[in-house]
Amino acid sequence: MNATIDPNIRTVTVVGVGLLGGSIGLAIRAGGSSAKIVGVGRRQTSLDEALQVGAVDEVCLNVAEGVAGADLVILATPVGAFNRLLTAAKDALKPGAIVTDVGSTKAEIVAQGEKVLSPGGPFIGSHPMAGSEHRGPTFARADLFTGATCILTPTGNTPPELAERAQRFWQALGMRVVRMSPADHDQAVARISHLPQVLASLLMQLPSDSDLDIAATGFRDSTRLAGSDPEMWRDIIMTNRQPVLAAIETMTGELRHMAGLIEAGDADAIEQLLASAKQRRLDTIGRKLTDRRISAE
Amino acid sequence: MNATIDPNIRTVTVVGVGLLGGSIGLAIRAGGSSAKIVGVGRRQTSLDEALQVGAVDEVCLNVAEGVAGADLVILATPVGAFNRLLTAAKDALKPGAIVTDVGSTKAEIVAQGEKVLSPGGPFIGSHPMAGSEHRGPTFARADLFTGATCILTPTGNTPPELAERAQRFWQALGMRVVRMSPADHDQAVARISHLPQVLASLLMQLPSDSDLDIAATGFRDSTRLAGSDPEMWRDIIMTNRQPVLAAIETMTGELRHMAGLIEAGDADAIEQLLASAKQRRLDTIGRKLTDRRISAE
Repeated sequence: MNATIDPNIRTVTVVGVGLLGGSIGLAIRAGGSSAKIVGVGRRQTSLDEALQVGAVDEVCLNVAEGVAGADLVILATPVGAFNRLLTAAKDALKPGAIVTDVGSTKAEIVAQGEKVLSPGGPFIGSHPMAGSEHRGPTFARADLFTGATCILTPTGNTPPELAERAQRFWQALGMRVVRMSPADHDQAVARISHLPQVLASLLMQLPSDSDLDIAATGFRDSTRLAGSDPEMWRDIIMTNRQPVLAAIETMTGELRHMAGLIEAGDADAIEQLLASAKQRRLDTIGRKLTDRRISAE
Repeated sequence: MNATIDPNIRTVTVVGVGLLGGSIGLAIRAGGSSAKIVGVGRRQTSLDEALQVGAVDEVCLNVAEGVAGADLVILATPVGAFNRLLTAAKDALKPGAIVTDVGSTKAEIVAQGEKVLSPGGPFIGSHPMAGSEHRGPTFARADLFTGATCILTPTGNTPPELAERAQRFWQALGMRVVRMSPADHDQAVARISHLPQVLASLLMQLPSDSDLDIAATGFRDSTRLAGSDPEMWRDIIMTNRQPVLAAIETMTGELRHMAGLIEAGDADAIEQLLASAKQRRLDTIGRKLTDRRISAE
């Protein structure tokens, strides 16, 4: 841990106790904080699982009840539920509380948070880039966030001190915090996360059953993201429609360009394209892998 | 090992001592065969590396010289060199020798092999689906083929006994052998291997440098194949143009369909599409992973 959790955070409420919500609870505890961790969920079974793995101290099916008294509230459900949750939580929030989230899209979410609560806080958007294709508190891990990147998306309305406090919280969980505007965040993740997700799901549908019988590790890795939660990804795509459409449009153009090179039999240009992609990977992801600076997601 | 290497195979010549060629040498030795393994290459440095890791017993810069006396000749260079190699090897081949390859495309290669040598053998196409994005004999591994799938592509011209002997060789290296026509093979690998390769390389070029700074493991895995050898993949794409174009065309159509759903805001259809891809993955690759039946590639 790079820092300790602010001792003024005495109660943390995690709304949604899945892989991310559960891991936040475990990470807070592993960081040595004695804060009380309250888990809020819609289903008692998930809440019981979260209690069982030690991710939360108390559980609650009611949002308003769950957030009352919390110094930090973290929304960790699919983003489609945020509007309803913020509305239900609003009047129960303690003055001075921080409200943030772990959603994979930010512009629409942050606008909702500022509208439902108030423009000047207490909502600030976060996107801790951690997780996996698994879901549920039984996959939660105390070290899920260690070394990973968290994008914090303050706006012109966000009080600087609110952003500072949120930043320190994620840093105390071992994360590298990068600040971006909600719009810049959404453009970036459309290209590095949402488009790869869409491609993985579409790739999974192309081959015949007998094709799949001979599929190897290349195909397995290319389609790993297709194993992700459909409901979560539906919400991500629906709250980031324009950037995702732009990324799909760019990829379609790139595929058309590649098809043109193949039709023309331009072997040199094809090799050049593959070589430059390889070089870019070595210069970026490859170097990050060596430096152990890559985020788990 | 499921079987032992035919003791009548006393000399094996591997043309191209990279990752695959080197691993064949190591696997033959690990299988207990005392066959002499001859490595042929264009560069003395690669040949020296192959000698050093114990992948070959003898090395040779001349193809005709290298294949003389071999009971089994395996082409393991980029496929673009096959025509030249087969032509150079032709008159030096021992009667009764088997000539096969490890190329990732088959229709064009097999037609070349039958044309340059003769339609009734000794060429038979093989595609051991093993490897990685690394290249060179220093990455060679004796167990690279264990549990992986080898596609054997006999034609109507192939003597059944030639196919049997080639099949037994790959099985002795621990591989599951599946037979397909060269054309069926090429259609299948375009969808499960060549399209994923193209997508990985194109995906690598889409994000900006600052986007890449926050890329996480999802992006890393989605672009792993972009780290592959550009020359090898240029040849693969160039010898499988029509099936690759068809796969790109299908993917472009799928992306257009997805964009239509996003534009229409059809959240249910998007969730349905993601859920059915997830289910298909669980039913196929997911099950194979559990059964440890997946091929390394």
